Amino acid sequence: MKATVHVTLKNGVLDPQGKAIEHTLSGLGFKGIGDVRQGKFIELDIAEKDKTKAREQVDAMCRQLLANTVIENYTIEIIE
Amino acid sequence: MKATVHVTLKNGVLDPQGKAIEHTLSGLGFKGIGDVRQGKFIELDIAEKDKTKAREQVDAMCRQLLANTVIENYTIEIIE
Repeated sequence: MKATVHVTLKNGVLDPQGKAIEHTLSGLGFKGIGDVRQGKFIELDIAEKDKTKAREQVDAMCRQLLANTVIENYTIEIIE
Repeated sequence: MKATVHVTLKNGVLDPQGKAIEHTLSGLGFKGIGDVRQGKFIELDIAEKDKTKAREQVDAMCRQLLANTVIENYTIEIIE
C-alpha cells in the first residue's frame, strides 16, 4: 500500500523558504505572485494491507518523526 | 488563483532524505516500511485569472527556479 504525506507550516508561522521563492520569482520577472509557501511531500510504501490500520500507522509516523506538530500541519492520503 | 506544485526526484536518483526517514522509522520500531521518497510541495497565489495562462506561467517558474529538471520531475495543479 502506498501513502503520501503533505507537511505544511501552520498559518502564521514564518516560511523563509517560501519568501525566498517569492522574491526570486519577482526578480526573474514574474508578475502578480502573491503568497508562496513551501512544504514537504513524502511518499511511503507500507506493507500493511488494511486501509484504516495503514492510516493509523502513518499518523503515528507523522506525530513521531515526519512533522513538528507545534508549527506544522500534515495530511495523509492512502492510495490503493 | 491558487497553484500547487509537487517536485519529486526522478526514479533512479538517490534520495538521501528519503533513506534517512526510512532508517529512522525502522529505528522507531515501525515494521514493513518499503521505499520512502521525499519531495517538495509548493503553494502559490497568482494574480492570473486564466487557467491555461496560469498553468503556463507556473510551468515557466518550475523550469526556471522551482525544479532541477535534470534530476527532478514536477506536477502542477491549478485550483479554482
